Amino acid sequence: MASRGELLYPEVDRVFLEPYLPVNDSQSAKSGLPFVTLTFATSLDSALSLAPGVQTALSGPQSKAMTHYLRCRHDAIMVGVGTAIADNPSLNCRIQGIGGYGSEGLDGQPRPVVVDPQGRWQLTSETKILNLARQGRGKAPWIVTSKTPSADNAKLLEEVGGCYIVLEPQVSKNKTSIAWLDILETIKARGIQSIMIEGGGVIINSLLSTENADLINSVIVTIAPTWLGQGGVVVSPPRSEGSTLPVARLQQTKWQQLGDDVVLCGTLRA
Amino acid sequence: MASRGELLYPEVDRVFLEPYLPVNDSQSAKSGLPFVTLTFATSLDSALSLAPGVQTALSGPQSKAMTHYLRCRHDAIMVGVGTAIADNPSLNCRIQGIGGYGSEGLDGQPRPVVVDPQGRWQLTSETKILNLARQGRGKAPWIVTSKTPSADNAKLLEEVGGCYIVLEPQVSKNKTSIAWLDILETIKARGIQSIMIEGGGVIINSLLSTENADLINSVIVTIAPTWLGQGGVVVSPPRSEGSTLPVARLQQTKWQQLGDDVVLCGTLRA
Repeated sequence: MASRGELLYPEVDRVFLEPYLPVNDSQSAKSGLPFVTLTFATSLDSALSLAPGVQTALSGPQSKAMTHYLRCRHDAIMVGVGTAIADNPSLNCRIQGIGGYGSEGLDGQPRPVVVDPQGRWQLTSETKILNLARQGRGKAPWIVTSKTPSADNAKLLEEVGGCYIVLEPQVSKNKTSIAWLDILETIKARGIQSIMIEGGGVIINSLLSTENADLINSVIVTIAPTWLGQGGVVVSPPRSEGSTLPVARLQQTKWQQLGDDVVLCGTLRA
Repeated sequence: MASRGELLYPEVDRVFLEPYLPVNDSQSAKSGLPFVTLTFATSLDSALSLAPGVQTALSGPQSKAMTHYLRCRHDAIMVGVGTAIADNPSLNCRIQGIGGYGSEGLDGQPRPVVVDPQGRWQLTSETKILNLARQGRGKAPWIVTSKTPSADNAKLLEEVGGCYIVLEPQVSKNKTSIAWLDILETIKARGIQSIMIEGGGVIINSLLSTENADLINSVIVTIAPTWLGQGGVVVSPPRSEGSTLPVARLQQTKWQQLGDDVVLCGTLRA
């Protein structure tokens, strides 16, 4: 069988992540919310990319393997529509031994969830996430929106077993969004015990804002030792009106060097 | 004798810094430039402070002790005039056993250097750096400028043994500055073999720009696990006109956890 780009993430590098990963116990099962891990990679100047829509290789190969390992430790992974459109991401897990990558079925594959409040994402036959579902190398995606999906999009999604989840919008400052609490409660009710939220900038800054930060359990950030410079898409959450306090601070931090990069793990939810 | 806030920085935490510190050998003595270490502390969103002129406690006590230890390993320390005005900093070294802090004379005290191209800094009897020099707890400062100093300022500075160093300005985009090469060559000619540059934002971003980054030997950055949020004073160097490449990348990186923070060491000069 030809290699499908299977990745290895060694046991020795898994240990430091363990305290920050979801626990499957009866107490968390009863909670109305899934365990939420926020994870992303930035430069030293907190940039996710050089410019909007520009995919920027930041972290090294070990960090990529870590991300895929983290995916298999969650029931679902989530990105925003901006990332879906810009990157056409795979959103599956390619760790050796996971379903589709060395074992049968879809064992260990997370559910891809795309948040698209305004229904901007046009699905096509080139959409990777649909092709991977068709090939048995990833679960079918869910798309969370506040708009009625087009017939074409709905057909493409349903063909692979995916679905739209339509929720009430909230409109503020002329922007349509969906409350994070709604999104998280809804996917929990659909059986998702844990979710890893990967980006992009809009999603991350919204979740780290004072209003939403207590929905996050763990944060796992990779930082590459580079400065992308002015003009990048940065993680820097908005402050509350008139606030002169830091927006958020991680607790129980662990910093672990991984190649040239560092991985920072911490907790947020009080 | 009353305690003067002496700091301890344990041997065990010194080891990882050693490869990034100045070496006093004949080759570096012959170079026309001092060994330059750039050091500062930021939040995860690369902010030095919550707003311009607002001192922001970012890093923990161990990191403060590290900064003072690093100061005694350099002949001089430098800040820009913005930091001098906003913080009225001490710019001395308070590690136990250094001159003025447990031993005689000024052994191990670095020379404070303030870069003030437009002569904005008004010295007064409250200026800490002058008082410390008067008390034998710090060396007298040098102020690098392109303007003729006022008689009052010159008198206050000379009384404690300090001096103004007047260099040619370079004017671009209506901003008066002094070329970094000029500054560094001038202080080297005055016997400074190594200098630690501490901030603030204008100085750091100017030095990390593509034009100047090869003047820096080592970078030692402390990162605190907090997001200050939008509106902070950030380290994010300007890109060259039209460039879509990262501005700078550290080599030979070492990340070391220190309390809740991390210290990143790396090299820049090719």
